[in-house]
Amino acid sequence: MTPLEKNYTAAILIIGNEILSGRTQDTNIAYLAQNFAKNGVAVEEVRIVPDIEERIIDAIHEMKKKVDYVITTGGIGPTHDDITAQAIAKAFKVKLELHSKAHDVLLKYYGKDELTAARMKMAMIPETGRLIENPVTAAPGFKIGNIYVLAGVPEIMRAMFDHVLQMIETGEPVLSRTLSCKIPESAIAGDLGVLQTKYPDIEIGSYPHYRKGVLGLSLVLRSRKKDILEEATQEAAELIRTYGDEPVLPDEVK
Amino acid sequence: MTPLEKNYTAAILIIGNEILSGRTQDTNIAYLAQNFAKNGVAVEEVRIVPDIEERIIDAIHEMKKKVDYVITTGGIGPTHDDITAQAIAKAFKVKLELHSKAHDVLLKYYGKDELTAARMKMAMIPETGRLIENPVTAAPGFKIGNIYVLAGVPEIMRAMFDHVLQMIETGEPVLSRTLSCKIPESAIAGDLGVLQTKYPDIEIGSYPHYRKGVLGLSLVLRSRKKDILEEATQEAAELIRTYGDEPVLPDEVK
Repeated sequence: MTPLEKNYTAAILIIGNEILSGRTQDTNIAYLAQNFAKNGVAVEEVRIVPDIEERIIDAIHEMKKKVDYVITTGGIGPTHDDITAQAIAKAFKVKLELHSKAHDVLLKYYGKDELTAARMKMAMIPETGRLIENPVTAAPGFKIGNIYVLAGVPEIMRAMFDHVLQMIETGEPVLSRTLSCKIPESAIAGDLGVLQTKYPDIEIGSYPHYRKGVLGLSLVLRSRKKDILEEATQEAAELIRTYGDEPVLPDEVK
Repeated sequence: MTPLEKNYTAAILIIGNEILSGRTQDTNIAYLAQNFAKNGVAVEEVRIVPDIEERIIDAIHEMKKKVDYVITTGGIGPTHDDITAQAIAKAFKVKLELHSKAHDVLLKYYGKDELTAARMKMAMIPETGRLIENPVTAAPGFKIGNIYVLAGVPEIMRAMFDHVLQMIETGEPVLSRTLSCKIPESAIAGDLGVLQTKYPDIEIGSYPHYRKGVLGLSLVLRSRKKDILEEATQEAAELIRTYGDEPVLPDEVK
């Protein structure tokens, strides 16, 4: 049960041994999730899989049925461990072919003498794939079906995602309000459940946290309905006051 | 194909709307992945799902077959959106029952007068579940089958994971060496492929990055075989030198 009115949905597939080994702290998930939310697209699932062809193919098959848009990040560079394009071509049962526009872009970027075989690999795109421009290092991503294939390097991924937002239909942003307090979660839990039942159109999340050694609590109210969100937020603030604490509202409606 | 010798394997299931909405930057994945690797357990997959019972149940069913250990984080607190224990009980087709030891721990922590219904919820554990101690806020996690259910708050999760490491069988740590250079990935890609073919027992990852506006490249070599790892690392360093760059080795064998 999710009380947020359903609009467009997305899933994220992170392809990369470096995340699974803990070598790299992922930041792409949070970036994509925030920017999808601003554009009315709810992220429903994330998966992280290794650079293994069959694992990528399985994930693509399972995820593309569930949501409107699947974003993949990682594995589209020139090296032996960059197998995303090949895996996605197999998942769609199409050939990987030299894309003439991608070839032109790389030719312009590297020049004829420097466009080696390894670099040409980055112009190999699954048949029927549509390019997603990469303004940073030229090597493009692509869209096929409802899959949007982006680079893994955050700076490049972000620039490519701006293009994705131009390509997809988006919806009404999900609004959120946050209330912070120092009431133990377990003290206020019963009353929060009552509040959630009263406001089925609001998703109320309760997140304990440590700050400077003190256990605190953030309540996050989310909805596409601004008026009801405001009403529920005021009621949650009153609830906090009945426990003798004054809520902190770190953000405005956004 | 993964050239790392297989030892024990794990998967991570992050349960929480706050990660999928982008509100919270996850750090549990990297922590668990690093600490599993140090203990010879390879993380094979990560999933992030919302606080929706059937989505948790589906993920548990799919993941528990694939790996030796599944870690879940999040959703074991006292509020209405904490549904992990209930979902996992359903996935295992067992009842959720008041666990006498968990009850004793909470009673000691809160005292009789403060042990409210909401707090008692945290002592409800799936039948046959074994407790995982929580030294921070008393409310325990649990193990059932090969599933280890932990809190989502990083400080608590880490303390609980220390106990998990005592409960599971672990293996030989995966060793890694990193070489950083400023050679464009696409320039060295062909030679790296040759190196990977020569060393099938080494997993060679190639990760471009931006630092201070300069595109650089990190090569990460991983293996459980120390001697071969050292040999391949020296050869990769030589390869970098043939491109006129001097490799930086930011870490020792660890």
